[in-house]
Amino acid sequence: MKHYIGAGNPMHAQFEAKAGYTATHFQWSYEDGVGTVTLNRPDRKNPLTFQSYAELRDLFRALHFATDVKVVVVTGAGGNFCSGGDVHEIIGPLTKMSMPEMLEFTRMTGDLVKAIRQCPQPIIGAIDGICAGAGAMIALACDIRYGTPATRTAFLFTRVGLAGADMGACALLPRMIGQGRASELLFSGRAMKAEEGLAWGFFNALHESDAVLDAATMMARELAAGPTFAHGMTKTMLSQEWSMTIEQAIEAEAQAQAICMQTADFTRAYEAFASKQKPVFGGD
Amino acid sequence: MKHYIGAGNPMHAQFEAKAGYTATHFQWSYEDGVGTVTLNRPDRKNPLTFQSYAELRDLFRALHFATDVKVVVVTGAGGNFCSGGDVHEIIGPLTKMSMPEMLEFTRMTGDLVKAIRQCPQPIIGAIDGICAGAGAMIALACDIRYGTPATRTAFLFTRVGLAGADMGACALLPRMIGQGRASELLFSGRAMKAEEGLAWGFFNALHESDAVLDAATMMARELAAGPTFAHGMTKTMLSQEWSMTIEQAIEAEAQAQAICMQTADFTRAYEAFASKQKPVFGGD
Amino acid sequence: MKHYIGAGNPMHAQFEAKAGYTATHFQWSYEDGVGTVTLNRPDRKNPLTFQSYAELRDLFRALHFATDVKVVVVTGAGGNFCSGGDVHEIIGPLTKMSMPEMLEFTRMTGDLVKAIRQCPQPIIGAIDGICAGAGAMIALACDIRYGTPATRTAFLFTRVGLAGADMGACALLPRMIGQGRASELLFSGRAMKAEEGLAWGFFNALHESDAVLDAATMMARELAAGPTFAHGMTKTMLSQEWSMTIEQAIEAEAQAQAICMQTADFTRAYEAFASKQKPVFGGD
Repeated sequence: MKHYIGAGNPMHAQFEAKAGYTATHFQWSYEDGVGTVTLNRPDRKNPLTFQSYAELRDLFRALHFATDVKVVVVTGAGGNFCSGGDVHEIIGPLTKMSMPEMLEFTRMTGDLVKAIRQCPQPIIGAIDGICAGAGAMIALACDIRYGTPATRTAFLFTRVGLAGADMGACALLPRMIGQGRASELLFSGRAMKAEEGLAWGFFNALHESDAVLDAATMMARELAAGPTFAHGMTKTMLSQEWSMTIEQAIEAEAQAQAICMQTADFTRAYEAFASKQKPVFGGD
Repeated sequence: MKHYIGAGNPMHAQFEAKAGYTATHFQWSYEDGVGTVTLNRPDRKNPLTFQSYAELRDLFRALHFATDVKVVVVTGAGGNFCSGGDVHEIIGPLTKMSMPEMLEFTRMTGDLVKAIRQCPQPIIGAIDGICAGAGAMIALACDIRYGTPATRTAFLFTRVGLAGADMGACALLPRMIGQGRASELLFSGRAMKAEEGLAWGFFNALHESDAVLDAATMMARELAAGPTFAHGMTKTMLSQEWSMTIEQAIEAEAQAQAICMQTADFTRAYEAFASKQKPVFGGD
Repeated sequence: MKHYIGAGNPMHAQFEAKAGYTATHFQWSYEDGVGTVTLNRPDRKNPLTFQSYAELRDLFRALHFATDVKVVVVTGAGGNFCSGGDVHEIIGPLTKMSMPEMLEFTRMTGDLVKAIRQCPQPIIGAIDGICAGAGAMIALACDIRYGTPATRTAFLFTRVGLAGADMGACALLPRMIGQGRASELLFSGRAMKAEEGLAWGFFNALHESDAVLDAATMMARELAAGPTFAHGMTKTMLSQEWSMTIEQAIEAEAQAQAICMQTADFTRAYEAFASKQKPVFGGD
């Protein structure tokens, strides 16, 4: 299967983390298979703008082809994750837009969530402090989420007069924390406390503020050292089976896993176990 | 958008809470946008009858057009929520019915749940004491649920020889508390204790018996003072996205939220934030 | 309805527990309506082989017609539940198979989960010690799960270079414990501790190692003494409604429950209640 994978693949758009990539509206860093996105307007708690939405969407779409990026960490600078869409740079202009323009905006923000869900890399959120509005949705779109005791997560769309239905919240949040808890958060817009988020399954773990990014990065490195082609299939199937019947899901996994059984990583694992060694995976 | 909303709208059936409405088989009260349904045969723990099922169904269907009712509270009189279908008035007659008559009954009870889910108002349950059978299903159909330490919630259909599949239980309960917990409750018919209900996400909070209705009413008033058109959209989308794919759900929300961005409430919120004031919403 | 049920029914394949059935690759015992499957290669923590997968699949398919088996308990011998697919007997051969052969294998393992979900009997897992890989999937396919403080449940497919998408894991696990927790377990392959499993709704209860099988058997006897035709309908609908809309699910339950209202068990329950006695169910 190796000849289908790699940066020289003609099916791949041009994105190579190793070749260097500089983001304009957030920070991007890369090391040993792990890419890190840092929202970085800390003086305003890292709000989103039209430009940062679009650039994030484009990055996650490009990651689809970035075979040298195995796992992605998403975090915020300065003790907060993200305050959501900026009141002056986004909310104000939106109140003056035509319907086609507004739909273009809501589709763009939704496309960011779609791109996060559709790229093959597991995405790990390191989420401290304020995590609000569209920021809460970016957190929700991650595969694994680490918070801190100070994290306050608010799906506060209702506070600006809007529906809780934003960027997929009414679909994703109930599956993460249960339909009843999701309903309360989306109708009220109140902040979910960190301990609630942990008890309800929104956060996989809480770490201290000065440790949460390290914890996310360590997990990212572990996953990056694993069978990353198979990780991509796990991610695809977690989305793919969202609204299948049980029977359809089982048949879909029979096919997906048979594909993974033809990878070199599967043989490597078997050979390592047979010789009582730890397998070294290659992602192919 | 204003010209589509209001009691004078020719698309609306005739239901105006302000104009007065008196229920026959339960109590109805109305104040400042909040309607309250009280099941009130306290001597028998508020059982349901053929007549009360039908009248509840008709009320929640009428609420679809009741633009002066913004939020609904559902509760029971005398320290219990509801004991379910009355053994003598419902179970007995059912054992003598023909198949078409039985199906008419099960469809009527299901239509009550559909009507609760389909009306635009958030529904808040204030649930003390016994909450059993069809009563547990009415509780489950609410958007937000407050219990008390004394609440005992039993999906006890199995105890009368029936399936746990009643009024949507096999669909709604697993999404509320998880598939495994729901399975145990539906197969065994045992009562879920209040603390279990809180830990599992069935209840959003527990309050003392003498405070639970006040807590529900306070939450109802808060929501009624919010952007109620957007709340209706949140509710619609929570149901609408139930079995969509993630991609379909995100596109559906892009459209739904673009609609909400054309409401006056969105502009009111922006203008209030811009002038550092608290927004006053109008529901349009 | 009685004439459609019973071992003499020409629609039924030949499986009668009372007539005696001996399993080759695991233990089978039967008493008073409760069948017990015991995985029993305790020296190797009860791994699965090609043969035991196939025989388990065939047994659960046959149970579809076994009207004298009302409930099934699944457990493991020697303090462990199941270590999953045997490294030497399964993983090794798989690395040498052609694609059609691999797909035949992944479909067989998926067919086991389908058969467990599709037979009408509630399945209760008594799960001690190691519960790994395909063993964790058999546990996940049960309706009710009891663990012990020593149970370690690992969806460790990633450790052998494969996807977490195996036997329906990406569909079933998120609905059992939440999408975020499931994602972490499936990407990392780490063991879920018993207390996590209880807090997250994977286990319905924990019992001591020497008591967990008794607890499962006692629950099985209680359910076997219940309205077992209706239990079968509960089980069918829990699967059937997996990806329906709310409205479809409610109509499906209106039909399913109307069928159950024509059983003798429904009448027996009413008559017992009317005469203040405990109902004695017959499963018809």
